[in-house]
Amino acid sequence: MAETNLQILLRRRPNGPPVAEDFEIVETAVPQPKAGEVLVKAHYLSLDPYMRGRMSDAKSYSAPVALGAVMEGQTAGEVVASTVEGFAPGDIVLGGFGWQRFSCVAPGRLFKIDGGEAPLSASLGVLGMPGLTAWVGLEDIGQPKAGETVVVSAASGAVGQVVGQIAKIRGCKVVGIAGGAKKCEFVTETLGFDACIDHRGDLQAQLDAACPNGIDVYWENVGGAVQRAVFPRMNDHGRMVMCGMIAEYNDTSPAPGPNLMAAVRKRLRIQGFIVSDTGWPRYPQFRQEMLGWMAAGRLTWREDVVEGLRNAPSAFIGLLKGANFGKLVVKID
Amino acid sequence: MAETNLQILLRRRPNGPPVAEDFEIVETAVPQPKAGEVLVKAHYLSLDPYMRGRMSDAKSYSAPVALGAVMEGQTAGEVVASTVEGFAPGDIVLGGFGWQRFSCVAPGRLFKIDGGEAPLSASLGVLGMPGLTAWVGLEDIGQPKAGETVVVSAASGAVGQVVGQIAKIRGCKVVGIAGGAKKCEFVTETLGFDACIDHRGDLQAQLDAACPNGIDVYWENVGGAVQRAVFPRMNDHGRMVMCGMIAEYNDTSPAPGPNLMAAVRKRLRIQGFIVSDTGWPRYPQFRQEMLGWMAAGRLTWREDVVEGLRNAPSAFIGLLKGANFGKLVVKID
Repeated sequence: MAETNLQILLRRRPNGPPVAEDFEIVETAVPQPKAGEVLVKAHYLSLDPYMRGRMSDAKSYSAPVALGAVMEGQTAGEVVASTVEGFAPGDIVLGGFGWQRFSCVAPGRLFKIDGGEAPLSASLGVLGMPGLTAWVGLEDIGQPKAGETVVVSAASGAVGQVVGQIAKIRGCKVVGIAGGAKKCEFVTETLGFDACIDHRGDLQAQLDAACPNGIDVYWENVGGAVQRAVFPRMNDHGRMVMCGMIAEYNDTSPAPGPNLMAAVRKRLRIQGFIVSDTGWPRYPQFRQEMLGWMAAGRLTWREDVVEGLRNAPSAFIGLLKGANFGKLVVKID
Repeated sequence: MAETNLQILLRRRPNGPPVAEDFEIVETAVPQPKAGEVLVKAHYLSLDPYMRGRMSDAKSYSAPVALGAVMEGQTAGEVVASTVEGFAPGDIVLGGFGWQRFSCVAPGRLFKIDGGEAPLSASLGVLGMPGLTAWVGLEDIGQPKAGETVVVSAASGAVGQVVGQIAKIRGCKVVGIAGGAKKCEFVTETLGFDACIDHRGDLQAQLDAACPNGIDVYWENVGGAVQRAVFPRMNDHGRMVMCGMIAEYNDTSPAPGPNLMAAVRKRLRIQGFIVSDTGWPRYPQFRQEMLGWMAAGRLTWREDVVEGLRNAPSAFIGLLKGANFGKLVVKID
């Protein structure tokens, strides 16, 4: 049987939480690379919360996925055919090739890596966009200093697990927030955070207990009730790294936020960022530093691997509900 | 008749807007300087919105004024007696001597200036704490670049008038927000802002008309409805310099603020600061730059001078309602 391409398209824009019917799975012919193109077979697809934004046509930092187009996403795979010098079959490459098995891409959109340094899927997580997000956000905004208290929401997730471990390396007291006892145990026992709060419990009381000296750096992945509990506990000169607010992505109208007088009174810095603005030119420095920490046993990670591209929509729907445990990747069959 | 001291004390903490009965005016004997002290006679007292915070015992960046104590405030005056080398009668000095005519102070709290460079009262406004606030906040947070749109609330006030003029010097398009046609005319005609919006009118429509390219830097002095109108108009990578929120100082419970998802999506930087944290060591550099702009005719200012220390409470009550026009100072009789 000849190989076919498998693609997942955006069929319609979700109203609230995405459902299976918002996606369409199609089998098509394997595309043939034109001159100047490389044919890539993806082995892993990264599923990330930002994709919810791309499904909407609300104004955002990036254009939405068009209806009927392949869903966007980062992938790791190998070159299977190439008309381009410098790329040969068997080369391991990263790039944003979308929710599909095969794609023809221009070399400017390919990033060749040494596949032997770490498991391939890690280059979509701890060594990929989520890891770089953690590294850049701490470097540019969080700026954690030894002895400070750092709180990380979605602590067991792709970005959160890296944020907390880097903050530990920097000498901070690190408190995670995650959903459920199993994730909390992983955050403290495996990742080595000092404490982890279950957001299904009493957030206020748990934060008071875990952060007796208040909060100096808050890594925001979540929004909603977690943000409301954290905000009044920020210390003077605190930094809020606004990376995402997944708890509100499916909201059809925005909830009110905190009164900003506290930003004046406490001299807070509340700052958003998008890794693609300034991150990728710093990727080599990031990758080198991360591989060093891994080699020294100071940095670990957990993945939640879903088998089969056809399962990407249901896995993504689960991601928005916190059903995954660790960085969510799809192993493409 | 021998001179007496006049002092204004905090009699009780306001509940909502301050009223005359919250203050007490007392006549006392002129204090005698002890060894190591300087006796200062104040000529001008600065009245500033932050003083509302000092009247409350809510947690803030600075301890409240104690009940029965002299109200805090910056003053400009002259040395009338000194036991300290380096200070002689007739020296012109600045310092936080409070709402009183005479005070005995240690030299560490005195700042001697060349009184001939500018009118004395200017050292409480454009060349004083409010001017330094404008300069530091733009330098550290606002960072206006030529061609950007800068919106300044309370534009005719002590800080706002300096913010906008510096932003003009930096090559920005500057839009003020002020209360009433007279203030708006002053902001455009005298201060040279490109436009000024009357916050008593339709803020949304006026902002759309004055800022067709959105807002890159917002200087927040006001909060409330002005903040709600500005926030959704911030551009990607916009900076909100959180200096104060005078419209909410008398609120007994905080109003909700903006949903912070926009901070992620637009990569906003929302940051508060207090000039006393880092400003004063930079005062000489600030003063030199400001005097240069004044000499070149690029920087002007307006004061609202109230005659007589006994009128300070009513003038301060008016300040919180926007009744002043320009930097509010009290000329001490």
